[in-house]
Amino acid sequence: MRFVRLGEPGRERDAVLIDDQYAAWLSPGDGDLRSRAAAASGRVALADHRIGAPLRPGKIVCVGLNYADHAAEGGQQAPEEPILFMKAPDTVVGPYDDVVIPMGGEKTDWEVELGIVIGSQATNVSSAAAAAAHIAGYVLCNDVSERHFQAERGGQWDKGKNCATFCPLGPWFVTADEIADPQDIALGLEVNAKPYQKSTTAQMIFSATYLVWYVSRFMTLYPGDVISSGTPAGVGAGQSPPVFLRPGDVMRAWASGLGEQRSRLVSVSS
Amino acid sequence: MRFVRLGEPGRERDAVLIDDQYAAWLSPGDGDLRSRAAAASGRVALADHRIGAPLRPGKIVCVGLNYADHAAEGGQQAPEEPILFMKAPDTVVGPYDDVVIPMGGEKTDWEVELGIVIGSQATNVSSAAAAAAHIAGYVLCNDVSERHFQAERGGQWDKGKNCATFCPLGPWFVTADEIADPQDIALGLEVNAKPYQKSTTAQMIFSATYLVWYVSRFMTLYPGDVISSGTPAGVGAGQSPPVFLRPGDVMRAWASGLGEQRSRLVSVSS
Repeated sequence: MRFVRLGEPGRERDAVLIDDQYAAWLSPGDGDLRSRAAAASGRVALADHRIGAPLRPGKIVCVGLNYADHAAEGGQQAPEEPILFMKAPDTVVGPYDDVVIPMGGEKTDWEVELGIVIGSQATNVSSAAAAAAHIAGYVLCNDVSERHFQAERGGQWDKGKNCATFCPLGPWFVTADEIADPQDIALGLEVNAKPYQKSTTAQMIFSATYLVWYVSRFMTLYPGDVISSGTPAGVGAGQSPPVFLRPGDVMRAWASGLGEQRSRLVSVSS
Repeated sequence: MRFVRLGEPGRERDAVLIDDQYAAWLSPGDGDLRSRAAAASGRVALADHRIGAPLRPGKIVCVGLNYADHAAEGGQQAPEEPILFMKAPDTVVGPYDDVVIPMGGEKTDWEVELGIVIGSQATNVSSAAAAAAHIAGYVLCNDVSERHFQAERGGQWDKGKNCATFCPLGPWFVTADEIADPQDIALGLEVNAKPYQKSTTAQMIFSATYLVWYVSRFMTLYPGDVISSGTPAGVGAGQSPPVFLRPGDVMRAWASGLGEQRSRLVSVSS
């Protein structure tokens, strides 16, 4: 199943896709999405509503340098074990919402990623194979990054990863049973219709199940948490010369089976 | 005013302190704590209830190396601008709850800190002076850290900062008007009654108002967010030889005007 959240910011309602144009509202309540979908009713045209982020994660754990070609374009070694950092849930916006270039942001950049959605609490999972049972599904994520803040202002990467609007998520939360193989998902990103990133999750150094197992050794994962699994080569900082986002630019991120996003860049004063 | 949350984990209720032994329940509702306190009723003995964390932050932004003596004990330079990293809100526990040494944790360590509680949304605040209006109050925080995960497992500090239970908070959320000068708060931490940390916030390199101003340039701060402002010298990793926490140890953290915590260390299997 593919779940969406429809409505104005802060007032979205859960719905389940019927097809690529229509959805049905879920029954209210805090129950499991699948049970609520079983009682879904009505028929609403997606075109009639804003599509918000399909999830409100409790936390977002990001993975750095998880594609060898992306590590190489930044002049870095592929890591021996996953690099983890954090993105605050309040950075999440919908898949067609504007992305704000922060004040003083000189090097705002894109990162298309496969987001892994946690379905059940995971602590010290015994193996990557056992981790599969903790994955509820997948979501398309753009780990927007301000490279100047991230790398040139002292300290840890989080400073360039947590600007408001820096986490376009969605359009859909796709349940795991809809994805034949999470390590065979094509994904890419274009800016102003020019392709920059194009790869497949087959190129991930650490797989989705490996990442869930790994992260669960360091922190407890709860239902609705998201692990954003790293980006392939083709970010703006990796171009020669580097290319960064400017107001008016439009990013189009996509992943096979997970839908696409279109995010317009605006300046902070807009 | 000093606010507390009383009750079993996940079922705490808000209350306002009457004195050091008694509190009054706040009226229910989502309103401002002060208005709810005006209608507080009853009289409850603190001794009759578990004291939980006084806040459920939306995000926790931590500051690294904000005391020159702590930077020096780790062999590091004092930073030219604040180092920021993140702690997930799901790591928060109450001031008397157990702290769990994670599986594979070899170097679990303490960090007593002044927590700054945000009262109103803050984005690109114009100056440190203007930032004062965004501070609702203060809370005692222990930024528990696994040094092996933080520094020896590749990548960013977050890996050693986000283990479950690694953020004892409280006992009180103290409103800003109760604190004469946030840069004149004595604070310290003992392990098994042996003093390790003892300092004052006068030694902070970057003050509370400076930090709110600074963080607001990189991310939007929302009401209830916490900035944990860094720790003074005396952490376990800074001892010669280093001292790390073991099951059965008891940390006592304190700060003048903010109360004290007692956290017992337990192994992950307990």
